[in-house]
Amino acid sequence: MDKTLAPEQKRCTILDSMIDNRYREEIPDIVDLVVNSCSDKGCFDHLDSAVIPSKEALTEIIDLIRDILFPGYFGDQTVDRNTLSYHVGNEITELFNKLSEQITNSIIHECKRYEEECTECVDRGQEETLMFLKKIPEIRSMLASDIIATYEGDPAAKNYDEIIFSYPGIFAMTVYRAAHELHRQGISIIPRIMTEYAHSAVGIDIHPGAKIGKGFFIDHGTGVVIGETCEIGNNVRIYQGVTLGSLSFPKDESGRIIRDQKRHPTIEDDVIIYSNATILGGDTVIGARSVIGGNVWITESVPADTKVIIEEPRLIFKEKKH
Amino acid sequence: MDKTLAPEQKRCTILDSMIDNRYREEIPDIVDLVVNSCSDKGCFDHLDSAVIPSKEALTEIIDLIRDILFPGYFGDQTVDRNTLSYHVGNEITELFNKLSEQITNSIIHECKRYEEECTECVDRGQEETLMFLKKIPEIRSMLASDIIATYEGDPAAKNYDEIIFSYPGIFAMTVYRAAHELHRQGISIIPRIMTEYAHSAVGIDIHPGAKIGKGFFIDHGTGVVIGETCEIGNNVRIYQGVTLGSLSFPKDESGRIIRDQKRHPTIEDDVIIYSNATILGGDTVIGARSVIGGNVWITESVPADTKVIIEEPRLIFKEKKH
Amino acid sequence: MDKTLAPEQKRCTILDSMIDNRYREEIPDIVDLVVNSCSDKGCFDHLDSAVIPSKEALTEIIDLIRDILFPGYFGDQTVDRNTLSYHVGNEITELFNKLSEQITNSIIHECKRYEEECTECVDRGQEETLMFLKKIPEIRSMLASDIIATYEGDPAAKNYDEIIFSYPGIFAMTVYRAAHELHRQGISIIPRIMTEYAHSAVGIDIHPGAKIGKGFFIDHGTGVVIGETCEIGNNVRIYQGVTLGSLSFPKDESGRIIRDQKRHPTIEDDVIIYSNATILGGDTVIGARSVIGGNVWITESVPADTKVIIEEPRLIFKEKKH
Repeated sequence: MDKTLAPEQKRCTILDSMIDNRYREEIPDIVDLVVNSCSDKGCFDHLDSAVIPSKEALTEIIDLIRDILFPGYFGDQTVDRNTLSYHVGNEITELFNKLSEQITNSIIHECKRYEEECTECVDRGQEETLMFLKKIPEIRSMLASDIIATYEGDPAAKNYDEIIFSYPGIFAMTVYRAAHELHRQGISIIPRIMTEYAHSAVGIDIHPGAKIGKGFFIDHGTGVVIGETCEIGNNVRIYQGVTLGSLSFPKDESGRIIRDQKRHPTIEDDVIIYSNATILGGDTVIGARSVIGGNVWITESVPADTKVIIEEPRLIFKEKKH
Repeated sequence: MDKTLAPEQKRCTILDSMIDNRYREEIPDIVDLVVNSCSDKGCFDHLDSAVIPSKEALTEIIDLIRDILFPGYFGDQTVDRNTLSYHVGNEITELFNKLSEQITNSIIHECKRYEEECTECVDRGQEETLMFLKKIPEIRSMLASDIIATYEGDPAAKNYDEIIFSYPGIFAMTVYRAAHELHRQGISIIPRIMTEYAHSAVGIDIHPGAKIGKGFFIDHGTGVVIGETCEIGNNVRIYQGVTLGSLSFPKDESGRIIRDQKRHPTIEDDVIIYSNATILGGDTVIGARSVIGGNVWITESVPADTKVIIEEPRLIFKEKKH
Repeated sequence: MDKTLAPEQKRCTILDSMIDNRYREEIPDIVDLVVNSCSDKGCFDHLDSAVIPSKEALTEIIDLIRDILFPGYFGDQTVDRNTLSYHVGNEITELFNKLSEQITNSIIHECKRYEEECTECVDRGQEETLMFLKKIPEIRSMLASDIIATYEGDPAAKNYDEIIFSYPGIFAMTVYRAAHELHRQGISIIPRIMTEYAHSAVGIDIHPGAKIGKGFFIDHGTGVVIGETCEIGNNVRIYQGVTLGSLSFPKDESGRIIRDQKRHPTIEDDVIIYSNATILGGDTVIGARSVIGGNVWITESVPADTKVIIEEPRLIFKEKKH
């Protein structure tokens, strides 16, 4: 509310002419310092690499995939039934170009990591892209089941349009279902960058390796974590803050953690998991139709048709002193 | 740290000339596949609709509203007292144009949903916009009370400017207080897209239908959920991860959930709710001046002047084996 | 799925010519109303200020810092070892220009708050920027230790590149470690805007005043809160939803909260804190090598080498009725 400012303070505004070369003279030494420090052990660099995965390109790819999956909902022009095929044709061509470049880059990136020569990287990039494009009808059908589950599970949902336009869970599932297919094809780096983009956008962290059945509904969603080796059945509903995580990490003889192993739970069909519940461990199975209450912490299996809640009277009520 | 790359690997970089038409020849078939799959049940489309709500336009609208509510804080030019009225005049005119277009679109969208003819949509869009603009002084006054409550409730807050420039709770409340007024006017879709934009930006999920009194302070905020039919009094303070949610969904005779009913709690004046507490149910009332401890899970009413905490000695301390 | 739309509804599309001046005539009165309401108590303004901190500029600054810290990982062009020094030279020069402008602005802003004249603001802005630039090798080395700790602590991490490209914890730590150095130099407003930008991007809320040792690993991260006066040792690992917060706010004789005091816990070396655990209070010390279980709520110190978990059998299992 600084209401009383002396007018002579105005001169403090920076003028280019006021920038004193005295300070700029120090820059070359700092550049040397920074460049030299990068030869140390304490620096991760990505130099001499022909390719960098582009988060911007992947964001555009996600937008394109969403437009194709839900025709007419997004974008800046309306689409009608007569010209739908031109519209989809354009978008699929653009998606082919952008996605095949990124997939090719990721294949080249892997070749270099293992110091292999990659003679067929560009061909494989295009083949993998076509394989992905052919899965769009299946991805769309899975997402339709998620949207219907959302409408049926949320009394605050006014209609399907509201869900598609604004629900964070549907955005996260759109990105996950696309990324999961790329992950299944063995594409590296890209699926994780895609799901971390969704995580950043809506606070829902689904690893592209998780397996999730149809009719999955995430309400509110902030703080949800679904780990790499989860297996989730059909018509499962979860709320904000739910973690499906790992319990502990077995190590090999040299003390390194073992990376390829089921570490995350299995959730059978028609289970409901309320907010901030935590379910951990690769051997943990939540049986079909069970209900897990809010804030529950589970590290062992639960039979089918069971309700697990926190013991009731754990609260202390005190009258406040005035 | 891939430091040892053979130079011949460089040729893997994609050249346009390397793109093989063999792959592109498959695109038309894929387009047909995708277009045809959209006639199935498993596809949500938004075709033949004259209008699409624009998230980009709504984001610009939120920026304009924030500039008008807090003159001189945002935007790329400084504002002085002498020219304030020109500045505000320009911004209100721009807001009128953009918001009346979006509101008109949302009215047309509703007309079409119910297959009504909409002869006065454009007039109504402008009337509703004017009605909203007249509420700006009241919205500003409510937000001023939120800012003062934030300063008084947070020892880490250095001054009001820091709060307005950077606090996520104030951003969420700015968007909510504007969206809530549009919601009260019966505008559809837009209020929810606005609050979901804030949810995405700062992780605080406030339904535009909730009623929140003055002097509301949300600290940190990630994971907060405030449901559609919540009623919150004056000078309430809540922390990150607090859920004010619904307990269960009554269904009608045909098994469908009933949508218009108070499902979320009532929080009276001067209540404090600590982090990750969960309060559920439409009949649950937290009485005035009560304090709800962290991680508490409440589904029944709490009288006024009461402190509710989790029972103390529930922790097990074990010495770790070496 | 609105598939049956009458063609005459098409005329509802807004045409500029349809905008009725009747409504626009009301705008000047509304502008007066809004401008006049800003002289009231219920308005925060930032008028007659020479400078506004620019969130856009600070976002660009964060991108530059990240490019310099991890050469070749981000940006739109590949970098090779031969030209690294030119690349870094350009980026450091650009960072100097942008950051010195923002720091100078923040110094001028403080001068004005205390109604002091600021004759050396521009000089100080450049000096402080140089001081920050010289710390880049140290910041880089700390972040390298965080990346190694992440790889060693997360079985889902495939390699270092994936961590640097996509892990939200590394993004949050990059912003925090830079902002913390600016905070130590006594720069106001900027560090908090930077960490709130990271909070908004990845849901991890670290106050720039917190002190964090090397090898810090945050997994998943959404909902993490690390308060202003936390002190965290080396090789600490925390999971999503962990709060290191304050317990209560002592007030001075006039009833105002005391702002400069240790209010947040101390976490010693090699501690692990699992998801959604809450540790509160300035006198609370978690001893070295201790493990704090998920959902635990702690307000008192824990000795070294201790494991604290929630008491086991607090769950009720009920068979569901069909």
